[in-house]
Amino acid sequence: MRPSGRQPDELREIALTCNYTKHAEGSVLVEFGDTRVICTASIEEKVPPFLKGKGSGWITAEYGMLPRSTHERMGREAARGKQGGRTMEIQRLIGRSLRAALNLEALGERTITIDCDVIQADGGTRTASITGGYVALPLAIRNLMKQRKLRINPIHGQIASVSVGIYNGVAVLDLDYREDCEAETDMNVVMNEAGGYVEVQGTAEGHAFRRDELNAMLDLAGKGIGQLLEHQRAALENCKAG
Amino acid sequence: MRPSGRQPDELREIALTCNYTKHAEGSVLVEFGDTRVICTASIEEKVPPFLKGKGSGWITAEYGMLPRSTHERMGREAARGKQGGRTMEIQRLIGRSLRAALNLEALGERTITIDCDVIQADGGTRTASITGGYVALPLAIRNLMKQRKLRINPIHGQIASVSVGIYNGVAVLDLDYREDCEAETDMNVVMNEAGGYVEVQGTAEGHAFRRDELNAMLDLAGKGIGQLLEHQRAALENCKAG
Amino acid sequence: MRPSGRQPDELREIALTCNYTKHAEGSVLVEFGDTRVICTASIEEKVPPFLKGKGSGWITAEYGMLPRSTHERMGREAARGKQGGRTMEIQRLIGRSLRAALNLEALGERTITIDCDVIQADGGTRTASITGGYVALPLAIRNLMKQRKLRINPIHGQIASVSVGIYNGVAVLDLDYREDCEAETDMNVVMNEAGGYVEVQGTAEGHAFRRDELNAMLDLAGKGIGQLLEHQRAALENCKAG
Amino acid sequence: MRPSGRQPDELREIALTCNYTKHAEGSVLVEFGDTRVICTASIEEKVPPFLKGKGSGWITAEYGMLPRSTHERMGREAARGKQGGRTMEIQRLIGRSLRAALNLEALGERTITIDCDVIQADGGTRTASITGGYVALPLAIRNLMKQRKLRINPIHGQIASVSVGIYNGVAVLDLDYREDCEAETDMNVVMNEAGGYVEVQGTAEGHAFRRDELNAMLDLAGKGIGQLLEHQRAALENCKAG
Amino acid sequence: MRPSGRQPDELREIALTCNYTKHAEGSVLVEFGDTRVICTASIEEKVPPFLKGKGSGWITAEYGMLPRSTHERMGREAARGKQGGRTMEIQRLIGRSLRAALNLEALGERTITIDCDVIQADGGTRTASITGGYVALPLAIRNLMKQRKLRINPIHGQIASVSVGIYNGVAVLDLDYREDCEAETDMNVVMNEAGGYVEVQGTAEGHAFRRDELNAMLDLAGKGIGQLLEHQRAALENCKAG
Amino acid sequence: MRPSGRQPDELREIALTCNYTKHAEGSVLVEFGDTRVICTASIEEKVPPFLKGKGSGWITAEYGMLPRSTHERMGREAARGKQGGRTMEIQRLIGRSLRAALNLEALGERTITIDCDVIQADGGTRTASITGGYVALPLAIRNLMKQRKLRINPIHGQIASVSVGIYNGVAVLDLDYREDCEAETDMNVVMNEAGGYVEVQGTAEGHAFRRDELNAMLDLAGKGIGQLLEHQRAALENCKAG
Repeated sequence: MRPSGRQPDELREIALTCNYTKHAEGSVLVEFGDTRVICTASIEEKVPPFLKGKGSGWITAEYGMLPRSTHERMGREAARGKQGGRTMEIQRLIGRSLRAALNLEALGERTITIDCDVIQADGGTRTASITGGYVALPLAIRNLMKQRKLRINPIHGQIASVSVGIYNGVAVLDLDYREDCEAETDMNVVMNEAGGYVEVQGTAEGHAFRRDELNAMLDLAGKGIGQLLEHQRAALENCKAG
Repeated sequence: MRPSGRQPDELREIALTCNYTKHAEGSVLVEFGDTRVICTASIEEKVPPFLKGKGSGWITAEYGMLPRSTHERMGREAARGKQGGRTMEIQRLIGRSLRAALNLEALGERTITIDCDVIQADGGTRTASITGGYVALPLAIRNLMKQRKLRINPIHGQIASVSVGIYNGVAVLDLDYREDCEAETDMNVVMNEAGGYVEVQGTAEGHAFRRDELNAMLDLAGKGIGQLLEHQRAALENCKAG
Repeated sequence: MRPSGRQPDELREIALTCNYTKHAEGSVLVEFGDTRVICTASIEEKVPPFLKGKGSGWITAEYGMLPRSTHERMGREAARGKQGGRTMEIQRLIGRSLRAALNLEALGERTITIDCDVIQADGGTRTASITGGYVALPLAIRNLMKQRKLRINPIHGQIASVSVGIYNGVAVLDLDYREDCEAETDMNVVMNEAGGYVEVQGTAEGHAFRRDELNAMLDLAGKGIGQLLEHQRAALENCKAG
Repeated sequence: MRPSGRQPDELREIALTCNYTKHAEGSVLVEFGDTRVICTASIEEKVPPFLKGKGSGWITAEYGMLPRSTHERMGREAARGKQGGRTMEIQRLIGRSLRAALNLEALGERTITIDCDVIQADGGTRTASITGGYVALPLAIRNLMKQRKLRINPIHGQIASVSVGIYNGVAVLDLDYREDCEAETDMNVVMNEAGGYVEVQGTAEGHAFRRDELNAMLDLAGKGIGQLLEHQRAALENCKAG
Repeated sequence: MRPSGRQPDELREIALTCNYTKHAEGSVLVEFGDTRVICTASIEEKVPPFLKGKGSGWITAEYGMLPRSTHERMGREAARGKQGGRTMEIQRLIGRSLRAALNLEALGERTITIDCDVIQADGGTRTASITGGYVALPLAIRNLMKQRKLRINPIHGQIASVSVGIYNGVAVLDLDYREDCEAETDMNVVMNEAGGYVEVQGTAEGHAFRRDELNAMLDLAGKGIGQLLEHQRAALENCKAG
Repeated sequence: MRPSGRQPDELREIALTCNYTKHAEGSVLVEFGDTRVICTASIEEKVPPFLKGKGSGWITAEYGMLPRSTHERMGREAARGKQGGRTMEIQRLIGRSLRAALNLEALGERTITIDCDVIQADGGTRTASITGGYVALPLAIRNLMKQRKLRINPIHGQIASVSVGIYNGVAVLDLDYREDCEAETDMNVVMNEAGGYVEVQGTAEGHAFRRDELNAMLDLAGKGIGQLLEHQRAALENCKAG
C-alpha cells in the first residue's frame, strides 16, 4: 500500500498552468501533487561562445529550490556562493532532455534558457521540471513565430518525464517524498512521444535491482509518460485557445 | 496622470494569501499589483555565533528574485557565485525592519529566517517583502506558541512598508515599475502601527529633492502604510479563523 | 551631554588634505575627528559594458576598511573572498551620491573610480567618504581639463554628507563611534549646495522615531552640511593656489 | 566496424596496478586502453557532520582530470575556483556506487575518500574510476584489518562499471573517445558480482533509443562487467601474494 | 648613475612613525622614500586550529595595496574575490620573517597579526613591510607586558629587510620603482641583528646573475640592513620615551 | 649521516621519462627519488590580454598535487575553491624560471603552459617540476618546428633546479621529505647551463644562516645542477632517437 493510497501505476494529480508569470516568453506552473515548480523559457538573441558563428541555437536549463520549499530550510545557494552537485546534475539533465526535442539549427543563433524554480517540493522535482519545461518551450517558440522571427517550428518531438521506483518490493509510478525516502530503487525516465528513451537514470538506494525489476519500472514509466504527454497537449491547446 | 490611472495617493491592489506553501512555519504570498513575492518564516533552534549563550534570539532575512521575474532575464545569483549589492542591501533592510517588531530576548535562543522570493517584479519588491514578511512572522510565532515552546508573544509592534516618489513633479504612492524608472525621487518608508518611522530611505534619481517634497512623500507614506496595516490585520484574522 | 563634550549641533574637527598620495588623478585625506579616510579619484578611458558607445561617462565608488582601522581587528575582505553587505551598501551610496554632482554625458566615455579607504574609524566613515570623495573628484577633473581632454567642466553641483541621530533623546550632529553605538536613531544625509537632498537614510536602532525627531535631525544635517561645503571649497581653493 | 578494430562485445586492454603510489592506504592505477586513472583510498578517523555520533562510517569520492589529460588543454578547476557540473556529477556517481559495496555501520566512524585522478583520457574515465576505485577500497580495508582497527570486513559486494552505446546502429561495449564522440546513445552501467544493477545511466545523444536497443546494451554491459570483476579479483589476489 | 641621484650603497630616506593609528596594539607608518606602508600588530587571545592546546603562539601577516597606491589603478582584491599570487607570496614572506624574531612558545596561546597596507608604492613594499612590521611587533608586545599578560619578552632577535639589485651592471641598494622596472636582477634580503640571513630571494629579471654579483649584492644588503636596524632602534626608543 | 644514507653531495636517483602522456605537445615524468611529477607542455595559439598584438609569446606554469600524493590527504584545491598560497608561490617560480630559458619574441604570439602535477611527494617537488618542466618545453618546441610553425628555436638556455639545505649542521644536496622537515635552512636554486643563477630562494627554518653556510650550499647546488643538466640532455637525446 502506498502512503498516499494511490495504485502502483497511478500518477499524482497533474496540473499545468500556462502563462503563470507575465514577463517570460513562455511560463508554466507545473504541479505533480504537492510538488510545484515554476518553469519559464527566456529567449536571448545570442549564443554561448562555443557556438558563435556556427548557425546553431542553444537550449540550456537552470534549476533552483526556494530555501523553504523543503521540510527543513536549506541554505540559499546564492548566499553560499555556489550551486551544489545535485543542482548541477539536475539542470544538466533538464537541458539535455529538452535539447532532444528541438532542432538547434532551425532555432537560429538564439539561446533559450529554461528556468525551473521549485516553490514547493514533495518528490519528483526534476521530472516535473522537465515535463513543465517542455510546455514553456513551445510557448516561447510560438512567441518567436508570431513575431515572424522564425518561420519553421524547430520543435520536432515532445518530451515528458516521470520517476519510477521499487517501494516495498513493488514497482510504483511517480514517487512522492515519503516514498522516495524509503524506496529501494529510484529511476528517472525521460521519453518522447514515439516511446523512445531520451534519458534513463536508475539508482539502487538499498539493494541492487534485478533486470525484471528494471523492466517493470520501465513499463510503468512508459504508461505514466503517455498520460503526461496528454496533459501537455491539453495545456498547450488551452493556452492557444485562451 | 499615472500610467496605471491611479490617483497619487492610491495603492495598487493588495493581496496577502496566508499559508501559501506547506512546509514553512509561516508563509504568505504578497501581491502589490503585479509584484508578487513569496515570504516564508523558518524557525531554527539555534542562534548565530555572536549571540550564543546570550539568551537572545535573532531574525534575519534573505531576498532573491527568480531569474525571469523581470522584463529581461537576470543572471541567477547562485550561478554567478555571489549575491549582488542590491540583493544584500535589500535583505539587510528587511531584516532590520522586522527586528524592530519583536523582542529578541522574549524569542529565546532561536533564529527566524524570513525568505522573500520575488516571483514577478513590477516595482516595490522590497516594500512588498517587508509587508509580507511581517505577516509570515506572526504566523510562525503562533506555531511556536501552539507547540508551547513560547508562552509570551515576543511581537510588540506591527510593521509595514511602502514606496513613495516624485513622478512628473507630483508626490505619488506605491510606484510601479514604469513610474519607478522615470521617478525623480524614490523613497522607501517603513513604519509601525504607532506612526513611528523604522526606516526612511530616499534617493534623488534626477534632481535633488526639496524639504517640502520630502514632507509630501512622508504624508503619502503614512496614509498608505495605514491601509497596509489594515490588510495585514485582516489577513492574520482570516488565517486564524481558517 | 555628548561623550566628546561637543554641543548637539557641533561637528567634529574637520580636515581635508589634498594631494595626499602622488599617483591618483585626485586624492584627499579626509578627517572627521578621529575618523580618517583616504579618498582617491582614478580616471580610466573606458566605460562599463552597459554604457559602451552611448557617449556617456561613469562614476563608481569602492569602499574598504583597513583590517585594524577598528577597535577589534576585522577579517580582511580580500582574504575572506568577498565584500560584505555593509561594504556594498556603502560603496553604492557613495557612487550614487557623487553621480548626482556631475553631468555624465559631459564627462565623455570615461570612468572615474572613487576609492575610499578607511585608515582609522571612529564613526561616520561613509559620510566622511562622500565629503572627501567630492573633493577628490574635482581635483581629477582639473587634471583632465589641464590636459585639454575636457573643455567644459562636467561638475554641476557640490555634494557633502553628515550623520545625525537621536542620542539620549536629543538630536545631535556628526556622531562619533561612542554615540553611534548608543544612538536610538541614526540618519545619514547627503545634500547639495542648493540645500536639496540627494540621499536621506534614517534607521531606528532602538525605538521608531517620530516626525518631529526626523525634522530636528534634518535641521541639524542642513546646518552641518553647510559647514562641510565651506571646508570643501576652502580645500579646493588652497590646492589650486598650492 | 569499430575504429579500434575491436569486436562489438570486446573490452579494451584492462590493467590494474596495485600500490601505484606509496602514501595512500590503498592505491591503484587503472587502465582501460589509453584511459589511465590513479585511484587512491584514504582513511580518516572522522565522519562528516551529518553522521557524527551515529555509529556509521562514510565513503565519498572526488574526481579530477589533469589539465592535459585531454586532447585540448582544459582549464584547471583549482585555478578557475570551482568544480564543473560534469566533475560533480561523476564524483557523486563514484561515491554512490562504492557505498553500495560496503556496510557503512561495520566500517565504524571513519571516512574513506576515493580520489580518482585522470592522467590520460580516452573515453570511459568514470567507469574506469569506479572499477579502479573498487580495488583501492579493499586494499585500504586490509590495512585497517592488519592494524586490528576492524575485525569484520565491511565489504559485502563487488562493484565494477563499464560503458555501452549504440555506434553506427550497433550496440558496442566499452567505448573509447572516438566512439564516444559519435555514438547515438551512451550508457554507463554499474553492477555487482550478483548481476544486480547499482546504477544505469543512459543518454540519447542523437536519436532516442528503443527498448530493444536498451536491452542489447544491458546484455553487453553484463558481459563486460563479468570480465572486469575477474580482473579485479586477479589484481587483489596478486597484491595479497606480493 | 641612479635615477634618484643616490650612491649605489645609499638607502632612500627612511622614516618610522610609531603609533600611527590609535586602535592597534602596535602601529607604525614606515616610509622608504615615497613608499609608504601602514603596519599594525593586532593581538588575539586564540591560535589557529593546528596549534590549539600546544602551548604555542602564532604570528601571521597580511598584505594589501590600496587600489590607487600604484601608477595605474589596480583592481581591489576584495572586489575581485581573491588575493593574487603576488600578495600571497609577500604575506607569507613577511610572516616567516617575523616569526624568526620571536619565541612562539614564550608568546603563549596568542596570535599576533601583522597587517601591512601599502598607501603609496614606489618599489620595495615588501622590504618596507618587514622592516616596519618588526617595529609594530615589539610595540604590541610592550602592551601585553604592561598589562602583565606576559612576564618574559618573547622577542629574541631584531629583523630588517632591504632590496638589492643589479642596475646598469652595478650592484645597488634599496631600489625604487624606476630602478626595479629596469633592474637585471632583484634580490630581497632579510637579516637579523647578528648578521644572519633569514631570507634570501634573488630573481634574475634579464640575464642570470653570477656568483660575484650575488656577493656584491649581499655585501650591500648587509650594509643597508645595518642602517635599518639603527632606524628601528631609534624609533622604538623614541616611542618608549614619548 | 643522512636518513637515506646518501653522501652530503649526492643526488637522489633521477629519472626523466619523455612522452609520458600522449596528448600534450611535450610531456615528461620526472622522478627525484620517490618524488614523482608529471610535467606537460601545452601550446595554444594565443597570448594573454596584456601581450595582445605585441609580437611576443608567453610561458606560464601551473602546479598541483594529487590529494593523496602526501602522507596525509590534503583537501583538493578544486573542491576548496581556491589555490593556496604555497601553490601560487610555486607556480610563479616555475613560470619565471622557464621564461629565463627562452626568447619570448622568437616564440611568436603563442602561450606555452607547463603543468606540473605531483603524483607522489617526497620533498623537492618544486625543483623536480622546474627540472622536468625544462624537458617538456623543448619537446613542445620540437613539435612546433616539425610543423614548420617556427623556424628558429627560441630556446637559448638550459635550466635545472635543486634544493640544498643545512641538515644537522652540514650542507646537503637534494633534500628528501625527512630531511626537509628537520633542516635548519632550506634553499632552492635555479641555474642555467652557464652557471648563472636564475633564482636563489633561501629560508632559515630554525636559526638564521651564515654567509659561509650560504656559500657551502651554493657550491653543492652548482654541483647537483651540473648533473641534472646532464640528465636532461640525455633524456632529450634519447627521445629524439626514439
